[in-house]
Amino acid sequence: MDLYIGNKNYSSWSLRAWLMAAKSGVQFNEILLQLDTDSFYQQLKAISPTLKVPTLVDGDITIWDSLSICEYLNDTYLAGSAWPQDPKQKAKARSIASEMHSGFNAVRNALPMNIRASRYVELTDAVRKDIERIDAIWSAQMAEFAPSNAEGTWLFGEWSIADMMFAPVVMRFITYGVEVSQASRAYIQHVISCPEMQAWMSAAKAETEIVAADEAGIER
Amino acid sequence: MDLYIGNKNYSSWSLRAWLMAAKSGVQFNEILLQLDTDSFYQQLKAISPTLKVPTLVDGDITIWDSLSICEYLNDTYLAGSAWPQDPKQKAKARSIASEMHSGFNAVRNALPMNIRASRYVELTDAVRKDIERIDAIWSAQMAEFAPSNAEGTWLFGEWSIADMMFAPVVMRFITYGVEVSQASRAYIQHVISCPEMQAWMSAAKAETEIVAADEAGIER
Ligand SMILES: N[C@@H](CCC(=O)N[C@@H](CS)C(=O)NCC(=O)O)C(=O)O
Ligand SMILES: N[C@@H](CCC(=O)N[C@@H](CS)C(=O)NCC(=O)O)C(=O)O
Repeated sequence: MDLYIGNKNYSSWSLRAWLMAAKSGVQFNEILLQLDTDSFYQQLKAISPTLKVPTLVDGDITIWDSLSICEYLNDTYLAGSAWPQDPKQKAKARSIASEMHSGFNAVRNALPMNIRASRYVELTDAVRKDIERIDAIWSAQMAEFAPSNAEGTWLFGEWSIADMMFAPVVMRFITYGVEVSQASRAYIQHVISCPEMQAWMSAAKAETEIVAADEAGIER
Repeated sequence: MDLYIGNKNYSSWSLRAWLMAAKSGVQFNEILLQLDTDSFYQQLKAISPTLKVPTLVDGDITIWDSLSICEYLNDTYLAGSAWPQDPKQKAKARSIASEMHSGFNAVRNALPMNIRASRYVELTDAVRKDIERIDAIWSAQMAEFAPSNAEGTWLFGEWSIADMMFAPVVMRFITYGVEVSQASRAYIQHVISCPEMQAWMSAAKAETEIVAADEAGIER
């Protein structure tokens, strides 16, 4: 199984699919393409109709888009265990994952993922509104699943596709020093202490390529 | 089961979830809230954390977001039949549905759903690029599933969640007279001849409320 991803420092959608593949324990080859280069498009041309990463190729099956890669891996290799098993929690996890997948454009545009950087960006009202909603989601889940645990946990106790969707947001909040509740800080700590996240972050920090469009803000 | 939706003329995300519920054959109460009014937010406050439609309430389960409502109905009431059963086709259907759910922002912003209108809008390059990609998806699916059928069919032969995601795009292309391939025109015809779509469109055309933000373009 081949997973095509972009630069680990910048490619937020890639992180979602890669973390899912890594947490799943399936064997996969990671093929890292440099965003914004000719060879990125040359190599994807034969594979992905959207010319975007992540794209997963599993035998004669091709899946592009992060959320569908998560659903595919869950269906095919995890017998559905990457969503909470309780129907009510599953419905909530799916709603949160979809809300992230189709929304939060203000945060996505203003605070590009840039793992190795530490920046300051002036927050507009739209960005603040997105941050507030994300903070509310994380805080409520921590109150439910880690009520007295300063260490935090996954959004639904066990890791699920919902956490995969929010992993790049965790990276963004760290880069731009976004202030969130204590419960959300515990969630952030929990996510970044996961060994697969540690591996991704180390690799991201070792990268030296610059994608100018994703370099926002001033050093702090 | 209660499905909260917005104005049928304008609410593109609502159309996706409503069409899914209608095609599923499940019994549901439709609760139509007028977008952009105080009572919209008053009524959603107790129900949906995002204050957006569509929101589905099924007993003690609440799901917000169109794609997760589709997945929920498929899981809970259709034993998975709203995705193609062949794994390769299912992966493709999921990719296309997700591509729509998280993308095509240029089309979504420039060509708001406005079923009763017939308008002209100058197309930017970004909008053209989105249209080309949508046209390519529809054409390829018609070539595969309705090769010699001038009438068109669903994207994967039988209706699936992929068609639900694209239904509002069909409406947009009609309103703004967007030119597409003959195969894509056959798909458009197929979608609008579906009885549930006919019912939605008639109701939309009977509405008289105006949402100024969604009134784009000049009459043609
Ligand atoms: N909705 C897609 C978005 C994928 C996406 O936009 N990927 C970016 C990198 S993070 C990309 O490939 N950009 C290259 C380009 O647009 O040329 C997903 O969830 O996977
Ligand atoms: N990603 C959501 C988007 C829902 C959405 O944006 N709904 C619009 C109407 S089509 C809405 O409720 N707008 C009201 C508001 O934002 O105040 C989905 O797929 O359901």
